[in-house]
Amino acid sequence: MVEPATATQAAAPVMPQLKDELDIVIPTIRNLDFLEMWRPFFQPYHLIIVQDGDPSKTIKVPPGFDYELYNRNDINKILGPKASCISFKDSACRCFGYMVSKKKYIFTIDDDCFVAKDPSGKAVNALEQHIKNLLCPSTPFFFNTLYDPFREGADFVRGYPFSLREGVPTAVSHGLWLNIPDYDAPTQLVKPLERNTRFVDAVLTIPKGTLFPMCGMNLAFDRELIGPAMYFGLMGDGQPIGRYDDMWAGWCIKVICDHLGLGVKTGLPYIYHSKASNPFVNLRKEYKGIFWQEEIIPFFQQAVLPKDCTTVQKCYVELAKQVKEKLSKVDPYFDKLADAMVTWIKAWDELNPPTAGSVPNGKAA
Amino acid sequence: MVEPATATQAAAPVMPQLKDELDIVIPTIRNLDFLEMWRPFFQPYHLIIVQDGDPSKTIKVPPGFDYELYNRNDINKILGPKASCISFKDSACRCFGYMVSKKKYIFTIDDDCFVAKDPSGKAVNALEQHIKNLLCPSTPFFFNTLYDPFREGADFVRGYPFSLREGVPTAVSHGLWLNIPDYDAPTQLVKPLERNTRFVDAVLTIPKGTLFPMCGMNLAFDRELIGPAMYFGLMGDGQPIGRYDDMWAGWCIKVICDHLGLGVKTGLPYIYHSKASNPFVNLRKEYKGIFWQEEIIPFFQQAVLPKDCTTVQKCYVELAKQVKEKLSKVDPYFDKLADAMVTWIKAWDELNPPTAGSVPNGKAA
Repeated sequence: MVEPATATQAAAPVMPQLKDELDIVIPTIRNLDFLEMWRPFFQPYHLIIVQDGDPSKTIKVPPGFDYELYNRNDINKILGPKASCISFKDSACRCFGYMVSKKKYIFTIDDDCFVAKDPSGKAVNALEQHIKNLLCPSTPFFFNTLYDPFREGADFVRGYPFSLREGVPTAVSHGLWLNIPDYDAPTQLVKPLERNTRFVDAVLTIPKGTLFPMCGMNLAFDRELIGPAMYFGLMGDGQPIGRYDDMWAGWCIKVICDHLGLGVKTGLPYIYHSKASNPFVNLRKEYKGIFWQEEIIPFFQQAVLPKDCTTVQKCYVELAKQVKEKLSKVDPYFDKLADAMVTWIKAWDELNPPTAGSVPNGKAA
Repeated sequence: MVEPATATQAAAPVMPQLKDELDIVIPTIRNLDFLEMWRPFFQPYHLIIVQDGDPSKTIKVPPGFDYELYNRNDINKILGPKASCISFKDSACRCFGYMVSKKKYIFTIDDDCFVAKDPSGKAVNALEQHIKNLLCPSTPFFFNTLYDPFREGADFVRGYPFSLREGVPTAVSHGLWLNIPDYDAPTQLVKPLERNTRFVDAVLTIPKGTLFPMCGMNLAFDRELIGPAMYFGLMGDGQPIGRYDDMWAGWCIKVICDHLGLGVKTGLPYIYHSKASNPFVNLRKEYKGIFWQEEIIPFFQQAVLPKDCTTVQKCYVELAKQVKEKLSKVDPYFDKLADAMVTWIKAWDELNPPTAGSVPNGKAA
């Protein structure tokens, strides 16, 4: 019989093999230094850049990168009327990149995020850590006090049930930010000088049944396991709200991961977040969300998906139905959002037709 | 209106005032260096030493410490027939110290635990960090990705509901261990050389609904909030099991904290755990627990306490009833344990009679 959880093996770096299995999705690049800073880490990978603003403006990509670039005209051309589900003039448009990718893994990052240093001064290879996180199982059913038991030098502690040590597949890896923390507008206004200088050397599974605020700044996921739920909603131009694109996706993916027996990890890797966005602009984008989240979060906390929801798509369409039923009374926006969620799934399936012999996502299948 | 969660204030050290509000409970002292190592930190406090073995042996306490010492004869004299609920020849007897203390806070530590160093080489004041943890609120209803929002330099991140930022009172602070990790016998046998060298600079609330393996090596709690549930069960001499004393307490306190709206934190502070206990001895003590925990943990995960359980005592007696009903079929030991749980509460109430004007514990009250 195999010994339970000699976990370090699973964490062994397998970077080279993933070269052809991962796309990096970036919502616009305003900062020309951005790709230069990341060149040693990103150059082996294919980039998908989704331009969030005026299609007539040109994004300059330095030589040596393998990339494809989509602007609004491209999105409209590819999706036709279904392009209505993709946000305009907002970084939420990045999810179009998730849809057109043909790879198993996605890493998405903002253009004001640079390479962080660990406490020893070494540059953090964020992508490598995300891949480690995604390739190791998650442990959502019981808390391990030494954090991720699959990291080198760690394991399951005394009292951790052996039946749970196999873990479940990890669908999402949520990375953190040094320097400028991801605060809401009110906290930015109150603490304009606060910087995150604490390097917490941990990765952990967010327990089943617990929601978290997922930030899209430094995020990786397994497209095959959870891709169709990574919809960043309707934000920006023509919408009453912004800066809730990643939050929306985070609530949806967590409920669906919990239902399908998939894991969500948070912690390492850090990126260096260089620039605080304008808190006054943020407040205007956020303020309805600050009210609405008080009703949205209890909704997601109580959401139950029926047993016959055995694929991410089925889960997501069911969630859309529940959003329409229960959140439309909060604001008519949610009625529109629920429709867009269904459109998103239709567009996803059109661009990602099921292949012969493909199996439903997740563990419940 | 007060700004939400400018949290650092709450975390301000208030050490001096707690001198008369905290007891340190130690289950026997075999190692004469132990108290000398901790002298700078422990000397201001009152110690309660509960001798776990032969009462005829004398424990030497170096001069300068304020302490009281109980051996088995003392326990029998004080509790009479109810002394049956206190384990003999096992460190589980420490919970007798919780019962005889008259202080608000308890810190309990094993005699093979020494002062740890942080990455800068500075000695960790474990007691100070536990007190900080206990004096700051917990956030069990939603996960904060920057960990404890009440620590200096941290806060609630974007997307954290404002209605939940007040938090709930913290009842338990679970500290960790550098050097020898708290592994079960199988893992000790498999990885005899593994040492925990990773200093994770984090404190976090264990989310509501999530159980964890609570280790009694380095643990602090608020006696007034959760004391009567900190029963370390029947272990050691005459019992079929050992090394599950703290686990049992951890399952019970977590279910009760979740029910009463109290928080449990884990992470900092670290102590330096000097000596691995013998894995062969441990295996003999643990092996039934390794089977039983596969049924005990689902039992606690599903345990529901009725609304009229508004005090820790009522919750605990109700849990005892459910243990008898649902775990006795696993082994007759649980029938005996359920009775001991009730005896423990009777003994607790005898030694800690409700004072005039006292209020029920917890938030539900």
